[in-house]
Amino acid sequence: MQPVGAVGLDEVTGLTTPIARFLDGNSHLPTPFLVFDLDVVALRYHQLREALPMAKVFYAVKANPAEEVLARLDSIGSSFDVASRGEIERCLNLGIDPSRLAYGNTIKKERDIAFAFEQGVTTFTVDAEAELEKVVRQAPGSTVYVRTATDGTGADWPLSRKFGCDLSEAAALVRRAAWAGMSFGLSFHVGSQQRDVQAWERPLADVGDLLRQLRGEGLEAVGLNLGGGFPSHYVDPVPELAAYGTAIRRSLAAHLGDFGGEVLVEPGRYLVGDAGVIETEVVLISRRPDNDEARWVYLDIGMFNGLTETLDESIRYRVGTPGDRANQGPVVLAGPSCDSADVLYEKAGYQLPLDLRIGDRVRLLSTGAYTSSYSSVWFNGFEPLRCFFVSAEDQGVVAA
Amino acid sequence: MQPVGAVGLDEVTGLTTPIARFLDGNSHLPTPFLVFDLDVVALRYHQLREALPMAKVFYAVKANPAEEVLARLDSIGSSFDVASRGEIERCLNLGIDPSRLAYGNTIKKERDIAFAFEQGVTTFTVDAEAELEKVVRQAPGSTVYVRTATDGTGADWPLSRKFGCDLSEAAALVRRAAWAGMSFGLSFHVGSQQRDVQAWERPLADVGDLLRQLRGEGLEAVGLNLGGGFPSHYVDPVPELAAYGTAIRRSLAAHLGDFGGEVLVEPGRYLVGDAGVIETEVVLISRRPDNDEARWVYLDIGMFNGLTETLDESIRYRVGTPGDRANQGPVVLAGPSCDSADVLYEKAGYQLPLDLRIGDRVRLLSTGAYTSSYSSVWFNGFEPLRCFFVSAEDQGVVAA
Repeated sequence: MQPVGAVGLDEVTGLTTPIARFLDGNSHLPTPFLVFDLDVVALRYHQLREALPMAKVFYAVKANPAEEVLARLDSIGSSFDVASRGEIERCLNLGIDPSRLAYGNTIKKERDIAFAFEQGVTTFTVDAEAELEKVVRQAPGSTVYVRTATDGTGADWPLSRKFGCDLSEAAALVRRAAWAGMSFGLSFHVGSQQRDVQAWERPLADVGDLLRQLRGEGLEAVGLNLGGGFPSHYVDPVPELAAYGTAIRRSLAAHLGDFGGEVLVEPGRYLVGDAGVIETEVVLISRRPDNDEARWVYLDIGMFNGLTETLDESIRYRVGTPGDRANQGPVVLAGPSCDSADVLYEKAGYQLPLDLRIGDRVRLLSTGAYTSSYSSVWFNGFEPLRCFFVSAEDQGVVAA
Repeated sequence: MQPVGAVGLDEVTGLTTPIARFLDGNSHLPTPFLVFDLDVVALRYHQLREALPMAKVFYAVKANPAEEVLARLDSIGSSFDVASRGEIERCLNLGIDPSRLAYGNTIKKERDIAFAFEQGVTTFTVDAEAELEKVVRQAPGSTVYVRTATDGTGADWPLSRKFGCDLSEAAALVRRAAWAGMSFGLSFHVGSQQRDVQAWERPLADVGDLLRQLRGEGLEAVGLNLGGGFPSHYVDPVPELAAYGTAIRRSLAAHLGDFGGEVLVEPGRYLVGDAGVIETEVVLISRRPDNDEARWVYLDIGMFNGLTETLDESIRYRVGTPGDRANQGPVVLAGPSCDSADVLYEKAGYQLPLDLRIGDRVRLLSTGAYTSSYSSVWFNGFEPLRCFFVSAEDQGVVAA
């Protein structure tokens, strides 16, 4: 495996001008904290619209549910994929129209469906008969998206095992929905941080077949949700977004050339991941008795106060440090808690400067997604991750 | 593997009278929530004191840092093992004397050591030279416990990989501490939820040797911290606490008969685990395309809103359900979020009644430790786990 080295702070695409200014001006602010550049979100939104002009964007709120993020996306025309009553309430409180919300979680309490429908939400996703029946009962006349399963191959954080039904079950659910007077669409998700731009090809071929079959029965879908999966910039390189756009447009043309419904995408990580930088401090550097080679570097952030996605070393953040980058050595990166599960990277092959010192600042890049809201309330007595939001608008500087 | 079945609510030792009353009287309270019986904590404290009369109890606050729990333990004479500045502040705010706090986390910011010392905390644990130097600088004249490594065998949640130094390193740290004018002790931790009562034997033999060697150099330890590891009642049976007491007392007599210092224990899970019951609701039951046999049962609590310790299916909670317990079938238990990592038990072989229905209440027993404070702040828009504290004192009923 290629060693994963510290990157120079000046080489870091995630360190936008507003973020760099904030960090420079707040060098005494206690760590850990997240600085988040709202302009990056807008930039990513426009890049996605450009790559897939036919697709309506539903931002997956769970990726970063901060009001600042939702408000910015609202202001540039995004719609929103919500996972819970809590996320619906937050969006509505910001003045977002319920017609722009899709309740995409396939696991919903019946009373939460009723609440959503009362509020004006009319788009729901299901992957099981019992869930469909809840929607039929509580949200009559709504649009139901039936989620089909994919195998998640190529994704760093697959979403396959728990979600989606097979194609014959999907057909049965569509028939039941149509019989109950509901509009319907199909959806699938190729997994989060999907690094293979061809991952949409097979599901789109399957979905195209299914839609033709249903059309033969007189059932016409009103929409197709391509899910998310578009990547942030972690250690492993990812294709340009344009390559995703090209591949997906080609698959759509090949398999769904005659589809007249709406096309949706559900990005989360892609819109917010690269917008955030977590500033941390080295608490301790030591040698462990069972590992002569690697230093253990303990940061003041760990798996349970923001870095949940380091679970199984699935998501490997780029790390920025001070020090002599020409002279690096292997490290294990761990969190500050008394829990031995709180080890971030042991096998991933990270290397950091040999002159790294206790008290040095360490920056975790592209940490704007699935961090702050995943932080625990008071694990080991550590406060949840604090967040600061910056933007060039406030300072007259062009970001990113 | 023996199938793990639903237990009858009446057979459930975790369901004390005050908890049962609370649940009966609050059947319409929205789930999920935790009900916690403070009398169980007091009972467990006294049981531990009885099993190990020579040992001073330092409750590991991280296991459940609720003020109600801390106040009850304070009132019956417990001391406290704290992991962070936040935990120290909470204890002091409750009026707990700083002399009864031990700062047991081996990964501490230097300024947090200084803060603790200013507040009157004078007991610190270290397992590395750099950490010792921080304590020497910031807390002169304090007592330093040097933590030695164990292999964690027999523990469901081992604590070995990240913590502790080997015996020769421990000797070096002790010499350095003594040279700097610090008192010293030794500590080790056999892992959390340790099911082998003999797990203390080997570390105590090693520590006994080390203490004799140090005595030969004129260095006398003031204390020995036996850590925690005492179990809660999950699916896998555990020995009675008395058996731990017998085994540990025997090992102490064999290897440390001449030890004149203080003996400490650091229980967390043991004191609070059995005191809590989490009440949840079945949100969805479905069949997954790739698994014909097991139903998937989705609860309204998952790995990220309280059940962190289901990670890798390490801690297997007992589950209480209504329904026909004579007719059970295999299930996968999963959480309510859009994250496919949010699966609780897939391999553990849980079985639940075939007539279990969406909307049924499901009780997770012995969930008083490492749940509420590990809950994330707003994962998928779900609120942190709510907690209610009950006690027979309020109701004139004898608990447990």
